[in-house]
Amino acid sequence: MPPPPVSDDVDAFLANPNPAVVASVRGDGSPHSVATWYDWEGGRVLLNMDENRLRLGFMRRDPRVALTVLDGADWSRHISLLGRVVTLEEDLDLRDIDRLAVRYTGGPFRRRDRHRFSAWVELDAWHGWAGGGPWPTG
Amino acid sequence: MPPPPVSDDVDAFLANPNPAVVASVRGDGSPHSVATWYDWEGGRVLLNMDENRLRLGFMRRDPRVALTVLDGADWSRHISLLGRVVTLEEDLDLRDIDRLAVRYTGGPFRRRDRHRFSAWVELDAWHGWAGGGPWPTG
Repeated sequence: MPPPPVSDDVDAFLANPNPAVVASVRGDGSPHSVATWYDWEGGRVLLNMDENRLRLGFMRRDPRVALTVLDGADWSRHISLLGRVVTLEEDLDLRDIDRLAVRYTGGPFRRRDRHRFSAWVELDAWHGWAGGGPWPTG
Repeated sequence: MPPPPVSDDVDAFLANPNPAVVASVRGDGSPHSVATWYDWEGGRVLLNMDENRLRLGFMRRDPRVALTVLDGADWSRHISLLGRVVTLEEDLDLRDIDRLAVRYTGGPFRRRDRHRFSAWVELDAWHGWAGGGPWPTG
């Protein structure tokens, strides 16, 4: 699995509002996965979670995560990222969840009465698949 | 997160050839995720992997996996399953990968010159999301 940075076409692919799944590690060491919105900026991934999400606790305990991003039009094209949560901070003014909601829905996030947290993920490795074979690495 | 069995509508949802992502745990305890075909039968998940896939080694070392299944038409609907690989055997006649290829593409798997392995996953828990809130559990 190549180290970052990703190739230019992977960078362009990740900039789209694609379906994604984030995996983290539970307290007993087993994996946990769930669908998620994300954003991609400067080679890092932004995630945002309601205060009650189990994965918030998992990431606090072990910051290592994986993210698989699918091409929503043809999911035989997909990119997977391995990385670490490097900042995990409360989204006090809901700016980050609004950013994600605008990216995915065109409008601000509707629910305004919950505490939310933003995680920025730095990459350690990536790999991808494009139809019949590995996504070119360069 | 509720224990199995899943509810009837989740059972019906998982029977469709949906996009999915499987998460396993690497040797260093960090998560790994990748898009995958799957099938669903009798409350268990069938996965199938080329002999060279990294996750084959991860599952041999630690059988705990997570699978997130997206509704391909509206991925705000998604189900995540936590479970364990209970059998991991070579797909000697490529019957299982053909089963998956027919399910997802309508025809048998094209590449016939590789060793492949099938994993059956038993569930320990599941959770889901359906648009604006949790997928009903009963």
